[in-house]
Amino acid sequence: MKHLLVIGIGAGNPDYITMQAVKALNRVDVFFLMDKGQRKHKLIDLRREICERYITQPTYRFVEAHSPERERGDVDYAISVDELNRARQQTFERLINDELADGQCGGFLVWGDPALYDSTVRILQAILAAGTCVFDFDVIPGITSVQALAAQHKVPLNAIGRSVEITTGRRLAAGQASEADSLVVMLDAEDAYQRVADRQTEIFWGAYLGTPDEILLSGRLADVADEIERVRKAARAQHGWIMDTYLLRKP
Amino acid sequence: MKHLLVIGIGAGNPDYITMQAVKALNRVDVFFLMDKGQRKHKLIDLRREICERYITQPTYRFVEAHSPERERGDVDYAISVDELNRARQQTFERLINDELADGQCGGFLVWGDPALYDSTVRILQAILAAGTCVFDFDVIPGITSVQALAAQHKVPLNAIGRSVEITTGRRLAAGQASEADSLVVMLDAEDAYQRVADRQTEIFWGAYLGTPDEILLSGRLADVADEIERVRKAARAQHGWIMDTYLLRKP
Repeated sequence: MKHLLVIGIGAGNPDYITMQAVKALNRVDVFFLMDKGQRKHKLIDLRREICERYITQPTYRFVEAHSPERERGDVDYAISVDELNRARQQTFERLINDELADGQCGGFLVWGDPALYDSTVRILQAILAAGTCVFDFDVIPGITSVQALAAQHKVPLNAIGRSVEITTGRRLAAGQASEADSLVVMLDAEDAYQRVADRQTEIFWGAYLGTPDEILLSGRLADVADEIERVRKAARAQHGWIMDTYLLRKP
Repeated sequence: MKHLLVIGIGAGNPDYITMQAVKALNRVDVFFLMDKGQRKHKLIDLRREICERYITQPTYRFVEAHSPERERGDVDYAISVDELNRARQQTFERLINDELADGQCGGFLVWGDPALYDSTVRILQAILAAGTCVFDFDVIPGITSVQALAAQHKVPLNAIGRSVEITTGRRLAAGQASEADSLVVMLDAEDAYQRVADRQTEIFWGAYLGTPDEILLSGRLADVADEIERVRKAARAQHGWIMDTYLLRKP
């Protein structure tokens, strides 16, 4: 039997890693690194750094694979993600079949938590359902950027006794977010906070959370939205990429 | 200056603790343990166990304080929580003023993550706003039962490109949950999943997550809801308390 570990390594700060993740890292023979292109190279480097820091017997090896990119432009989002995941599934099948011997343990290092806006678990379940590889797997949770955001701003995510909705910039921009009084937005490529009607809404925004490049801004949208847009644009130009998250709270 | 650390210790499994939390534990001079009555005593014991396991220089001490209980019965929930938090605020002020010297570091150990359905951060912000104590504080995120649930069931929280709503059993039972296709329910004392209209909804349920007593059940509500209710009742009778969480996913 082959064993796979989907390990959440937390978002940004190497100290976000859990004891459970450290133990899992030390069981892995082969780490599969999914290369998402030049601009995400820093994230690959951080994965290597985490392995170097926390693995006591360095007998592991890395296998890098190109991770297909989602088709952008005028295509249906769910369909393009679905197609992307089928392409990734083939890549995963190849890696598991060719790079891992029986009795060995393969590891996927997932930014944040594998349960939130990550496809690894979904793809492994699809492979098992298709029966094209034989393996079992475990999932190790990790600190998400949502939690890093709340911790760094020192705010709770929920109002007393109320709900929290976690959604995407795409859904917020399309008006598909619910009326939740606490809304966490991830994967926003379009400054969707600029489209929120009530400008008295409070925003707690953070980029590169938990890293030395961290930027935090907060206030009423009326006061800080334009500043966030400016800072965001400049940071993306400077670093070549940006990873940011924000909490919107109704007044 | 006094310094406070609000440390998320994760939900259930002592291995859920992060490196950041371990470093924070080792900075604390005085741990404030909030006693919530007999049935939660096991949670206090787990906090002591975490300190013993991860603190290398045991120069710290514990201060236990009775944490006032929320008034139950026919009272407005938000108001009763609000009153409770004012009473807790007085307790916290007393602890910070009387039990902590200038330059010392006080620690609150929070189950799961301080940002999700926990009042510690809100109370400390209220004390700072009132100006009744002088201190600064940091928040350390921790793995929540929501993440433990998804990891143990090996499922993503969100459907592709969709939202996740985290809410309470109280809100679900009152019909205040949104139409989110992925709904995570916490703090459910009333088997609110029995009131979900579409019995084809999938439920991923877990109790005592991450502990040796963990119980996992999943399936369509039509098939497993009654079994969950039975198992839940029996487990609560056996342990004297229950902590459970579940994910509802629309068909």
